[in-house]
Amino acid sequence: MPHIPLDPNLPGITGLLNYRQDTALPIRQLTQLLLRGESTLTEGERELIATVVSQGNQCNFCCNAHTAAADALLGETSTAEMVKNDPDNAPVSEKMKHLLQIARNVQADARTVSMEMVAKAREEGATDLEIHDTVLIAALFCLYNKYVDGLASVTPTEPAFYTRLAGILKNSGYLPWENRYAALKEG
Amino acid sequence: MPHIPLDPNLPGITGLLNYRQDTALPIRQLTQLLLRGESTLTEGERELIATVVSQGNQCNFCCNAHTAAADALLGETSTAEMVKNDPDNAPVSEKMKHLLQIARNVQADARTVSMEMVAKAREEGATDLEIHDTVLIAALFCLYNKYVDGLASVTPTEPAFYTRLAGILKNSGYLPWENRYAALKEG
Repeated sequence: MPHIPLDPNLPGITGLLNYRQDTALPIRQLTQLLLRGESTLTEGERELIATVVSQGNQCNFCCNAHTAAADALLGETSTAEMVKNDPDNAPVSEKMKHLLQIARNVQADARTVSMEMVAKAREEGATDLEIHDTVLIAALFCLYNKYVDGLASVTPTEPAFYTRLAGILKNSGYLPWENRYAALKEG
Repeated sequence: MPHIPLDPNLPGITGLLNYRQDTALPIRQLTQLLLRGESTLTEGERELIATVVSQGNQCNFCCNAHTAAADALLGETSTAEMVKNDPDNAPVSEKMKHLLQIARNVQADARTVSMEMVAKAREEGATDLEIHDTVLIAALFCLYNKYVDGLASVTPTEPAFYTRLAGILKNSGYLPWENRYAALKEG
């Protein structure tokens, strides 16, 4: 049960963003810029960063949601699964493996992101901006994970919920969307 | 040395917000709403939340900056010092003690914010919105701490730098300010 009264039709982050909409807007805008804005990382790659950070924070709502979003954008479910459970063998570029490791270190303890880790990412072609964005996406998902779990928002258990949410995140992105009740509702 | 090229005149978070200004704007707007917007928590109390979270993440730049901001707003230096080092005896309200504990738990592991902790804050008069804002401020400062340390931005050692920064944060808040070079420069 959430620590504050949230709309029961809006689980996870959706109810929190609805609870205080003035603070929700810059959070949404920042996410839209980082995850859907112009970038040399694909939208799927950026959702994988969100996924591993949410996994590290053990935030089930966000981990389920961004796994589903990555799956929807990549058109298959094995990459996100491998990135979470067998990262060394995941079918992503060497550059992405290093960036995902940087994201994991930002989540666990940002002070452990080392010169060597960054140098390895650069050797595989990572740019300054990609390194910057990886760190900021990881930091942003720490915000989300802590917001969602710190207020004990509800985590739906049915996979279909996350498939519907991922469809919205793929097609409409992170800015406020209309008909949120209807879009999230089964049927 | 920072992991990406940052303006050496803008240490800590200031160089990062300057590096990518499009993502900086919603971060600044969110911070302004939460730390300087209308609230039943004082600006000083909200800076104390930022301080304990930054302390928990061992982010020296942010901890120094928000300690100095709290000091500037409270007009004395002992409260922030006590909140960091002897929280049970700090000269803050019982409500604030409970909210600061919630913030510390959000920082360490947000899933540990318990019904009991929230109930105790409520018994001392905390409102739903104060509980919400405490969690979101704590989550936001995890973003900041991880952004600052994940990219190894420079942490000035001279206290006078933080006094100058705190003056800006007290008088001008978190939105972009003009003449940032001049304002941060010793002089």
